[in-house]
Amino acid sequence: MTSLLDELTQAVGPAHVLTGNAIPPQHCTDWFNAHTHQPLALVRPGTPDEVARVMAICHRHGQPVTPQGGLTGLVAGATPNEGDVALSLARLNGVEEIDTAAGTLTVLAGTPLQTAQEAARAAGLLLAVDLGARGSCQVGGNIATNAGGNRVIRYGMFRDQVLGLEAVLADGSVVGGLNKMLKNNAGYDLKHLFIGSEGTLGIVTRAVLRLHPLPQSCHTAWCTLPDHDTVVRFLRHAQAALGGTVSAFEVMWPDFHELVTTRVPDMRSPVAAQGLQVLIEMEGSDTERDMPMFSAMLEAAFEQGWLLDAAIAQSLKERESFWRLRDAVSEFPLMWSPYCGYDVSLPIGDLGRFVDELQAALRARFPHCEHVHFGHVGDSNIHVGVHVAAAHGPFPEAEIDACVYGVLRRYGGSVSAEHGIGQHKKAYLGHSRTPQELALMHTLKRALDPHKLLNPGKVLA
Amino acid sequence: MTSLLDELTQAVGPAHVLTGNAIPPQHCTDWFNAHTHQPLALVRPGTPDEVARVMAICHRHGQPVTPQGGLTGLVAGATPNEGDVALSLARLNGVEEIDTAAGTLTVLAGTPLQTAQEAARAAGLLLAVDLGARGSCQVGGNIATNAGGNRVIRYGMFRDQVLGLEAVLADGSVVGGLNKMLKNNAGYDLKHLFIGSEGTLGIVTRAVLRLHPLPQSCHTAWCTLPDHDTVVRFLRHAQAALGGTVSAFEVMWPDFHELVTTRVPDMRSPVAAQGLQVLIEMEGSDTERDMPMFSAMLEAAFEQGWLLDAAIAQSLKERESFWRLRDAVSEFPLMWSPYCGYDVSLPIGDLGRFVDELQAALRARFPHCEHVHFGHVGDSNIHVGVHVAAAHGPFPEAEIDACVYGVLRRYGGSVSAEHGIGQHKKAYLGHSRTPQELALMHTLKRALDPHKLLNPGKVLA
Repeated sequence: MTSLLDELTQAVGPAHVLTGNAIPPQHCTDWFNAHTHQPLALVRPGTPDEVARVMAICHRHGQPVTPQGGLTGLVAGATPNEGDVALSLARLNGVEEIDTAAGTLTVLAGTPLQTAQEAARAAGLLLAVDLGARGSCQVGGNIATNAGGNRVIRYGMFRDQVLGLEAVLADGSVVGGLNKMLKNNAGYDLKHLFIGSEGTLGIVTRAVLRLHPLPQSCHTAWCTLPDHDTVVRFLRHAQAALGGTVSAFEVMWPDFHELVTTRVPDMRSPVAAQGLQVLIEMEGSDTERDMPMFSAMLEAAFEQGWLLDAAIAQSLKERESFWRLRDAVSEFPLMWSPYCGYDVSLPIGDLGRFVDELQAALRARFPHCEHVHFGHVGDSNIHVGVHVAAAHGPFPEAEIDACVYGVLRRYGGSVSAEHGIGQHKKAYLGHSRTPQELALMHTLKRALDPHKLLNPGKVLA
Repeated sequence: MTSLLDELTQAVGPAHVLTGNAIPPQHCTDWFNAHTHQPLALVRPGTPDEVARVMAICHRHGQPVTPQGGLTGLVAGATPNEGDVALSLARLNGVEEIDTAAGTLTVLAGTPLQTAQEAARAAGLLLAVDLGARGSCQVGGNIATNAGGNRVIRYGMFRDQVLGLEAVLADGSVVGGLNKMLKNNAGYDLKHLFIGSEGTLGIVTRAVLRLHPLPQSCHTAWCTLPDHDTVVRFLRHAQAALGGTVSAFEVMWPDFHELVTTRVPDMRSPVAAQGLQVLIEMEGSDTERDMPMFSAMLEAAFEQGWLLDAAIAQSLKERESFWRLRDAVSEFPLMWSPYCGYDVSLPIGDLGRFVDELQAALRARFPHCEHVHFGHVGDSNIHVGVHVAAAHGPFPEAEIDACVYGVLRRYGGSVSAEHGIGQHKKAYLGHSRTPQELALMHTLKRALDPHKLLNPGKVLA
């Protein structure tokens, strides 16, 4: 063991191999402090080349490694097992190049997302994926988990932003490159092995991200609709009428809306009507013509009888108040402990019946529970939260999991739309993937990491 | 061998196992008749399940299989080796479902692209990828080769249309499924193994494709610009001004424009100016506001001094005449035989210097050659054609390859932007991919197809 630590120290310098109490506690646990283990060491390489050297050393010693980005994931995907080497990418921090002709940004994996976003904006371009953790999460972690967020409906997931990437394999070899081309069919597209595989097949060290034109206008409305089928009709109408510029389509079921407006201080709904609440936003390029187009789209929906009520944000402040209502989910851990949250996806047309059936199942099984349903319906993704007050006995987390995932399974849904599997959802992966698919995942894992050194215990059982 | 053919006959019926002269000749060769070999048999399964049974039988017999779609590929990627089983997907023909709420189309692999496009359109939606071979090529082949075409700049490659797919592995097992969700992070995203790997890792049998709203307006202009840097500025300006609705951005260098307008009958340029010719098109949703927006975008470009001349198509007929000029490439095989064509990509900003350098290299090395440069510059992809008349001796194809790919390599370009590698470009794959990347491709091939049964001799050496 001394030899391993000595070699790691030689590779990255004594200041960057921490052991024992010197390891900051967040490197030993997950977001909910549910999985806490002491790693053998926290190693902080400073360059992609040092990452490769660290992996080569660990490979020689048969030493498991848990890669760590910004530690903002919600599924314990970057939490070490006892005795792992925790490998932090945080020192690989920096935007290396912005190529405005190619429309690309080349960035080191440990760069915070917000730093990359701001660099793109300073060059007059948009790095399109955005999420709440932007200030802490890192681009490499965003890639490893295929992060989603609020603008997926317009620009896709993180996968869709990645043109090229460089990754270190289990044996320390470096693959991939800084491809800037939108089209490249020269052999297998290897980057997809590393996007969304949560560090179990390789460690992302560097990436080329696609940039988009900066939008020039933003229009936001809050609408109330009677039922889910009408919500889907409204979604498709808006997308057809606005030429691909719909950048958010968030739906809040009545359980969410009532909880937030009655229990969170200073939250008022922009409309009075009861029903499904929809926050819709477009980002356009034409400051004169976009507002008339957005209004005309809403008027046409009114004429169809789809909207019970609607309000267009008349100011940046009003827009912020709409989003504050949608983002009140951040209050749940404070007012609702203990609770459990889910991140599921289903075919868009099935979401309404799924929520109805799940609400009935939850109320039947847990009569004292409270629940919320809300999310990125335009992306086929909703979040579910369930709370049972402590007065009603020990929190039945495993039973709630089984109830939610049981209903989901009947609809052919996914147990993870955007958060990933990590450790939290491993037991339910088979609800969304066939035995043949799981077998092929194991085949890939064996081929790329035969000694199970990379992020062991995550994703696959 | 009798036993193998007997088993195959049992699996798919006697009418669908053809041998000897009964095999139609197009199943034995490639588009250019450059690689012709007699397969052991042409097998035509009628269902995904029959494809699985055929592969299980071939696996048991150690029998190599060449999957075949519409046979419109240009790189000999579906051409059998002597003694292979040629496996035609043509009988897996049909659109199984259109889900307008999810915005998806579920289709069997052997369905012609045009059939799928028309089914989507009849449901009021757009299957966005389009290419010249639409009537003959098949969706499974489009997926296996990650087909591109004319609207990639707006909607991405075929990869970006695939939400779910089902594939048969080398041993006959079936993986994947009919995922309709835009977001699904439940484990590895296995579909990317089969998209663009040209049938070497599995055989696509069925897919769920993403549909888009049908555009309501289409506006097209032909512009002349002085140089490539100005072309890039104009591209980025148009994309920013038109809110993501630019659906084509095709550039023709002077060599292309002169050849086509002087040598192809009835071809006239819409403008008189000399320079780089650009065909730009937008597809929008607002029949009233889109034309003023398109005109304003062009006027702003004029005011910047970027456009030497421009013409907006005033009718559908005029639009067609613009596209006829761009598509005159289809005349080259007739008037220019022998010639060789290339399908390369480079970072967009480098395309101008690459073409200058390549033209100089070609003229220095082959003083009698003619050449054309044109393509999807907005996608980082251009096509190059080189002709040397027979009067100047045997056609120096290998030397021209070496010249084109030699210049390309210095720019870090890709030897295949959209056509794939097949057999034609195998020798040059190492120009675009590192030894470590090639090693990882071989690792994948060994893991998924250890006995080298799937499309042997394609993509990898």
